[in-house]
Amino acid sequence: MSVPGGPRPTLEAVAALAGVSRATVSRVVNGGTGVRTEIREKVRQAVDELGYVPNSAARSLVTRRTGAVAVVIAEPETRVFSDPFFAQQLRGIGRELAAADTQLLLLMVESDRDHERIGRYLAGGHVDGALMFSLHRADPLPAMAGASGLPTVFGGRPDWTDTTGRAGAGPLYVDTDNRDGARQAVRHLLSRGRRRIAVITGPLDQTSAQDRLDGYREALDGPDAPAADERLVADGGFTAEGGEQAMAALLDAVPDLDAVFACSDLMATGALRTLRARGRRVPQDVAVVGYDDLAPAAWADPPLTTVRQDVEGMGRIMARLLLRRLAAPGIPLSPVITPAELVVRESG
Amino acid sequence: MSVPGGPRPTLEAVAALAGVSRATVSRVVNGGTGVRTEIREKVRQAVDELGYVPNSAARSLVTRRTGAVAVVIAEPETRVFSDPFFAQQLRGIGRELAAADTQLLLLMVESDRDHERIGRYLAGGHVDGALMFSLHRADPLPAMAGASGLPTVFGGRPDWTDTTGRAGAGPLYVDTDNRDGARQAVRHLLSRGRRRIAVITGPLDQTSAQDRLDGYREALDGPDAPAADERLVADGGFTAEGGEQAMAALLDAVPDLDAVFACSDLMATGALRTLRARGRRVPQDVAVVGYDDLAPAAWADPPLTTVRQDVEGMGRIMARLLLRRLAAPGIPLSPVITPAELVVRESG
Repeated sequence: MSVPGGPRPTLEAVAALAGVSRATVSRVVNGGTGVRTEIREKVRQAVDELGYVPNSAARSLVTRRTGAVAVVIAEPETRVFSDPFFAQQLRGIGRELAAADTQLLLLMVESDRDHERIGRYLAGGHVDGALMFSLHRADPLPAMAGASGLPTVFGGRPDWTDTTGRAGAGPLYVDTDNRDGARQAVRHLLSRGRRRIAVITGPLDQTSAQDRLDGYREALDGPDAPAADERLVADGGFTAEGGEQAMAALLDAVPDLDAVFACSDLMATGALRTLRARGRRVPQDVAVVGYDDLAPAAWADPPLTTVRQDVEGMGRIMARLLLRRLAAPGIPLSPVITPAELVVRESG
Repeated sequence: MSVPGGPRPTLEAVAALAGVSRATVSRVVNGGTGVRTEIREKVRQAVDELGYVPNSAARSLVTRRTGAVAVVIAEPETRVFSDPFFAQQLRGIGRELAAADTQLLLLMVESDRDHERIGRYLAGGHVDGALMFSLHRADPLPAMAGASGLPTVFGGRPDWTDTTGRAGAGPLYVDTDNRDGARQAVRHLLSRGRRRIAVITGPLDQTSAQDRLDGYREALDGPDAPAADERLVADGGFTAEGGEQAMAALLDAVPDLDAVFACSDLMATGALRTLRARGRRVPQDVAVVGYDDLAPAAWADPPLTTVRQDVEGMGRIMARLLLRRLAAPGIPLSPVITPAELVVRESG
């Protein structure tokens, strides 16, 4: 390490100490080939001794690598910090990136006005790639990433079609089988004899929310299933407060409903609060099934029957896909869909 | 905006469309002077039409500005996402930076091995400045930021002495008067007739934790105060679980203690859990005072008497100081110490 506050060591100083040319130092520092081991070792020693840190602005013009990856969550900070889904996904991403000595930079989106600024940063050569999740339909970020040529992996299938027409250039993403997870949840409720099954959805401009609603509808489409009823569908916006309000609206519209499938655990905990306030017993009067299997599911009272998706694992896979793309840009990679699995506890 | 997936427009294309030289485009894009308004307008129109985004790696070599600020929290992701203090501080920072059209990049520190990588990124020209908080004594990041010359503002007084000897070059930081806040808490307990007052501290390699312990000791140093007793001091590490365990250890060591000052609300909620489990009534048997006045304080059962610090406001001030330093590097700025204020609720 250099002395704190001292002048920053230059490439020239390294060259002088090692007794070689600037060009040789530059080649060694940037991982270029064609330098003898003996010379390479001299440069390394001089770099260590002086505490030289290459200037990445200059360096990235040569190597085009920064050693950093942007993680963009298309939600405001208040949601990111209140929904355990994001912490869990970041945990998986963070571990994989750290293992590859790659710096994670977290960017959140407070309002639509932030999109342009974030797009500019992503396009500006400060990161080697991006991971983006919780995208909404109108979100311009995928197009911006596409336009800048920045390697990007999405969490959740982006509702966005690649327009370049290049082979293998479709969006690279990691998702769970949301439709199948929802089908499992609703079939479980049907198997327990429930007939009036409501659903609390996420924002339908997100593919995960739309896919789970589709799965709910498919499960209710069998010969023995009760008829679909649009009064049994309410949007809870993927938040606990939203789940609370949606449950109240559903009970007002269909007082004799006997089950609810909440498309996230956070919304399910909100629904439980409303059911308790209205004097409905869970699961005797109303069975409740959530989605995610994050910590709030096991802590809930009663503990939540839910659909498990491996959120941390999905984060890991996203990071690994991006690292592979960065290491070998020419090799085509495919989206990864992880399985969803019903976990039966006490609520339904 | 440019067409997604199309080739990225170049500086040359902008110059051709505007009918001016590359140098003129560069000067306008980088905010340089000496270009006629009429020409400037032509360049702006061409930039808009083509959706040109300047490459910041190249641009920052000229302007040395990236439009982004790093926020480094020297804690692992699990702590950052479980302690509402960080979300609140980030809210204040995020709002100020967004108002100044500056991008916030959040970096967390999972392990000591991350320091070097983060130091490299900070020194690499990818950000204009840094905000750092929750630093620990041995943390090398302040020295790294100092060595790189990166303008930095600290949250909490850094336990670090500037060694450059430049006038006005001492570390710039924002803090609350932790010592005074702790004194207020303990004096309040004394005024309620409590005599055996325990303290649950944060990690003592952080100045905020050490300052609060000092304030506790000062308040107990008066002529009427009970004698200090080292068995009444336990470290709770600023986490709820730590507060739970520290409270248990304190009750084992001094079964007749009648009050506890927990140096964070999170540790106070942990202490409340232990007291409930041990059958102690709060505040009748043991009075509890916390620190921070974040959401868990008002939600606690019973609601917490605590010391309020304006965490979001401190975040705002940190961001403003950094933006001022970036706008006018030569103007000396001083650390800001915000007041602490006792909030009396039911726990003590």
